[in-house]
Amino acid sequence: MATTYFSKRNLQFLLYDVFKADELTKYDYFSAHDRETFNLVLDSATYIADTLMHPYLKEVDKNQPELKDGKVRVHPQIKEYLKAMGEAGLIGAGFSFEHGGQQLPEMISSCVGFIIMAANNGMMYTGLTSGSAHLITSFGSPELIEAYVPNLLSGTWQGTMALTEPQAGSSLSDVITTATPLSVDDSKAGHAGAYKIKGQKVFISAGDHDATENIIHLMLARIDGAPKGTKGISLFVVPKYRKDEQGNFVDNDVTSTGVYHKMGQKGVPAMHLTMGSNDDTIGYLVGQPNQGLSYMFQMMNEARIGVGMTATAIATAAYHAALQYAKERPQSRRLNEKNHLDAPQTAIINHPDVRRMLLFQKAVTEGSLSLLLEAARLYDLHEVTEGEEKENTFLLLDLLMPVAKSYPSEMGVQSVSQSLQTFGGYGYTEDFPVEQLYRDIRITPIYEGTTGIQAQDLLGRKMTMKGGKAPQLLFAEISKTISTASTYDDLKPYADSLTTELKRTQEVLTSLLPYAQQGNIERYLSDATLFLEFFGIVVVAWQWLKQAIVAKQALLTQNPEGDELAFYEGKIHTMKYFFHYEVPKTLGLAVRLKDPEVLTIVTEKELAL
Amino acid sequence: MATTYFSKRNLQFLLYDVFKADELTKYDYFSAHDRETFNLVLDSATYIADTLMHPYLKEVDKNQPELKDGKVRVHPQIKEYLKAMGEAGLIGAGFSFEHGGQQLPEMISSCVGFIIMAANNGMMYTGLTSGSAHLITSFGSPELIEAYVPNLLSGTWQGTMALTEPQAGSSLSDVITTATPLSVDDSKAGHAGAYKIKGQKVFISAGDHDATENIIHLMLARIDGAPKGTKGISLFVVPKYRKDEQGNFVDNDVTSTGVYHKMGQKGVPAMHLTMGSNDDTIGYLVGQPNQGLSYMFQMMNEARIGVGMTATAIATAAYHAALQYAKERPQSRRLNEKNHLDAPQTAIINHPDVRRMLLFQKAVTEGSLSLLLEAARLYDLHEVTEGEEKENTFLLLDLLMPVAKSYPSEMGVQSVSQSLQTFGGYGYTEDFPVEQLYRDIRITPIYEGTTGIQAQDLLGRKMTMKGGKAPQLLFAEISKTISTASTYDDLKPYADSLTTELKRTQEVLTSLLPYAQQGNIERYLSDATLFLEFFGIVVVAWQWLKQAIVAKQALLTQNPEGDELAFYEGKIHTMKYFFHYEVPKTLGLAVRLKDPEVLTIVTEKELAL
Repeated sequence: MATTYFSKRNLQFLLYDVFKADELTKYDYFSAHDRETFNLVLDSATYIADTLMHPYLKEVDKNQPELKDGKVRVHPQIKEYLKAMGEAGLIGAGFSFEHGGQQLPEMISSCVGFIIMAANNGMMYTGLTSGSAHLITSFGSPELIEAYVPNLLSGTWQGTMALTEPQAGSSLSDVITTATPLSVDDSKAGHAGAYKIKGQKVFISAGDHDATENIIHLMLARIDGAPKGTKGISLFVVPKYRKDEQGNFVDNDVTSTGVYHKMGQKGVPAMHLTMGSNDDTIGYLVGQPNQGLSYMFQMMNEARIGVGMTATAIATAAYHAALQYAKERPQSRRLNEKNHLDAPQTAIINHPDVRRMLLFQKAVTEGSLSLLLEAARLYDLHEVTEGEEKENTFLLLDLLMPVAKSYPSEMGVQSVSQSLQTFGGYGYTEDFPVEQLYRDIRITPIYEGTTGIQAQDLLGRKMTMKGGKAPQLLFAEISKTISTASTYDDLKPYADSLTTELKRTQEVLTSLLPYAQQGNIERYLSDATLFLEFFGIVVVAWQWLKQAIVAKQALLTQNPEGDELAFYEGKIHTMKYFFHYEVPKTLGLAVRLKDPEVLTIVTEKELAL
Repeated sequence: MATTYFSKRNLQFLLYDVFKADELTKYDYFSAHDRETFNLVLDSATYIADTLMHPYLKEVDKNQPELKDGKVRVHPQIKEYLKAMGEAGLIGAGFSFEHGGQQLPEMISSCVGFIIMAANNGMMYTGLTSGSAHLITSFGSPELIEAYVPNLLSGTWQGTMALTEPQAGSSLSDVITTATPLSVDDSKAGHAGAYKIKGQKVFISAGDHDATENIIHLMLARIDGAPKGTKGISLFVVPKYRKDEQGNFVDNDVTSTGVYHKMGQKGVPAMHLTMGSNDDTIGYLVGQPNQGLSYMFQMMNEARIGVGMTATAIATAAYHAALQYAKERPQSRRLNEKNHLDAPQTAIINHPDVRRMLLFQKAVTEGSLSLLLEAARLYDLHEVTEGEEKENTFLLLDLLMPVAKSYPSEMGVQSVSQSLQTFGGYGYTEDFPVEQLYRDIRITPIYEGTTGIQAQDLLGRKMTMKGGKAPQLLFAEISKTISTASTYDDLKPYADSLTTELKRTQEVLTSLLPYAQQGNIERYLSDATLFLEFFGIVVVAWQWLKQAIVAKQALLTQNPEGDELAFYEGKIHTMKYFFHYEVPKTLGLAVRLKDPEVLTIVTEKELAL
């Protein structure tokens, strides 16, 4: 088992040197913190990851939850980890002091997520709890907050996101779970805003288990008589056990109908739940009626940073396992020394093809992490800034989110595949962790909106909202990076290359936008997934140039030696790798995106498939 | 569970319309056959696949072999399948009548492999037996043939390929298993050519199990005093049970030291074997001493067609499952009708993004199958032709093999990933077969020579052998296809596109070959894997143009209707998809391949990774 599953050095470089996380402490909201408190939190997460999570990577995978007599039993270690996370204040890391949190920036709490997911992504429970609690603190009544949030943040209760239904996956507007208002004098109501809930939810991660005392579902449902479509969906808190008039916890008629057996992330039960089998499920409205989907969408950026981080974490763990193996595994001789039969075999890291695979993994995982911290920084700035700055950071964040969710997921799948390939036949066996990571990461391009959905969001909404202001802001940001990079002779060619890519992006948009203007959305979005791929390469190239600038400055000013010298040179080298191997992929993508030939839209004459 | 796992219609189209398999029956060797006998064999394979294999897809995956008290128990269905395959003559399909086979072309026997692997690739036993038996019939003494081949072809015994050792995977020259000659009067020798074998082998598929009475290993070992490297490796038959002087079967001291637990293809045990723990393993030399590796390489093309077929079969099964799901699963509305909330949801096949994913799967799987039948046809022609024609078909086959092994494997992995994505969250669960197929196919870019090894073979040997005659022959073949396609107005743009790709290939080679001429092989091959990817796209584009020509001719001459019309139009449409979506990828690859910047070769100053 690989003992290194992420690089602390790289995390520090990105957090403090590239993204200057400590500058956030200038703002009132974060003023209780400094770099030291940030690092204490990260160390605390690392300790939990090292001791309570990573050692159980395989065990949790091997003992997937089963539904028996209506109960779901999970690995006992889950309970230990939840307790430790609660006690260390890590579930509430990003919550305000007022709500019992640590009032830490998303930059830090998302790094906590990165560390623990790199250690053992099969223990993906606390992110769900944080997300659910955050919905309650953001939109719920003080009553709801008091009743639920403390137990969620302490890890005593589990939170879930209960959106998907059998007929409503990507199409959330088709949610049909019903909510019937209870009158305030109904003894069961408990308090105002109580509804009877009836329906089914599927794929509810951590939707039932025995590691917490209660499970709190943040559930989408439709109040009787509500408008059709997305505008008639409301958000409810639906607990597994609710308090009765006497203040005792009683069963809330949420039945575990089934547990999915999944290819990976086996530690977390994905549940099929049925509400109201005995007509006795009560849900409590969060915020206003019919605002459920808009509330969910307001939390979506945070959730999607979480998924991107999970993907990046899994791919990072696989990269470090592959790297270690490549340094240790002798096989064959260097190609220019093929006939030296007496020579000992060389470590495979010395073969160009293996180095290429490793550089690809490094480029993808560290590029993804950089992009996600960029997004987290914007998230934080949006929280603490005002006026135009607030609006602009929000636009930038909103634009980057589909990429920050999809690039790490899609490229992470490929990266772990290359990790596995680095191991050769051994990678396919349970002797090493990569086969599991290969299975685990494959869900990330699906949940929290598939890649196809992200692509429609990017091209269909984000590129055009406010008259295309978001891409204008992004291009301005990228241009700043280009300007700085241009001042260093050896970075200038890459700055120029990025300028070319910005022009290419503009050309692609110029060719596509007329379809949108003509109202032919289907045509406009028909290759949206390829546009997302294209745009992802450009954005991550920008991230690598940013990192290279900081590394270059460190080389020039700090005269680093040994490991530090190698670290900074490795950064510049990997930036070059990205520009020489990944960026050229935009050529083919742009050709397709500008291509007028339509091959995927169904016409009258149905295509045989 | 999907009931359709391959398209019989497509197989017939490729076999008879595109590759004219029945023309082979003009040659003496195949003259006992006609299209009817070919189809009888395929029907017989389909019957076995339908009844004895496909229904056990999940069951075989769920019950992976375990090693207990030195014995490996496999699913009881394996025995039934082996028996049926032996009785139907399918294990010996490609063997001569003289050796008890059906004397069928490789085109047909590889299609048998395609059908059965599409049904259940976890029952991958008979291909190994055929390959092992073929080594014996090709290079072994009449004595060896008589002793082993009949029981192998009947399915009573299992054959294996025992090459890999812990320190010798990709680097077979490092094999250290030893063979010490026994004198003919040693009572154990049995007959001349007997050796004591000592060593270890790893990853031996079907290397031990209880579904056959004996296991026959075709094993590489080094005779005492043999030259170092590849020139000192010999091939032996090493049975699990050998005949003693009295003609009784006795244990041959081949110990099952371990069984690997794999991510996929779980039905087939991958064994770690130890020979000579009690100094009592006897092996029988096949052919001449020190020729073992060259014998293996002579069988390699057949084995690699087998792996390509396995990958294609798995991806085909996943494609048909995804296609069926996409036709049945309603979700959301067409993008231009987003606001029609009263409209029922549309089947997801009507969404352009889903169609794109399906077209990708169709393009990859049917393109791969076409390429593999092209290779099988060359294999057959090489067997039955003479002189220059024989030599040329061999050169062409040898050139195409690394592509015909790697393209289906590498792109098949991506294709199954898109099948899984088509299912959304359901694809990640065991409710559908795709999650298993996603795990199963991932081994194919590794075994029988990893993609990296195939790439070195292609660029390092095949492109340059005989002064580059092989690519010349291939380009001439492709040019013929281009000429024919150019005569049809609607195919001409694609013919022109392929001409451009041939020029681009030439440019890439012109830029790379000087490194080889300077003897800098490491530099020449440093991006060989990208060249393989590039070349694969060009070759499969050629295959699609070939198919489109035949489809076009059918449309013009047969006036097809209904399903037949749709089939041919689907072929032309998918060809267009390939040229519009896949071929542009060569642009970026060519940029990288011609790029002088070296980033993957280790220099004095070691790069930090």
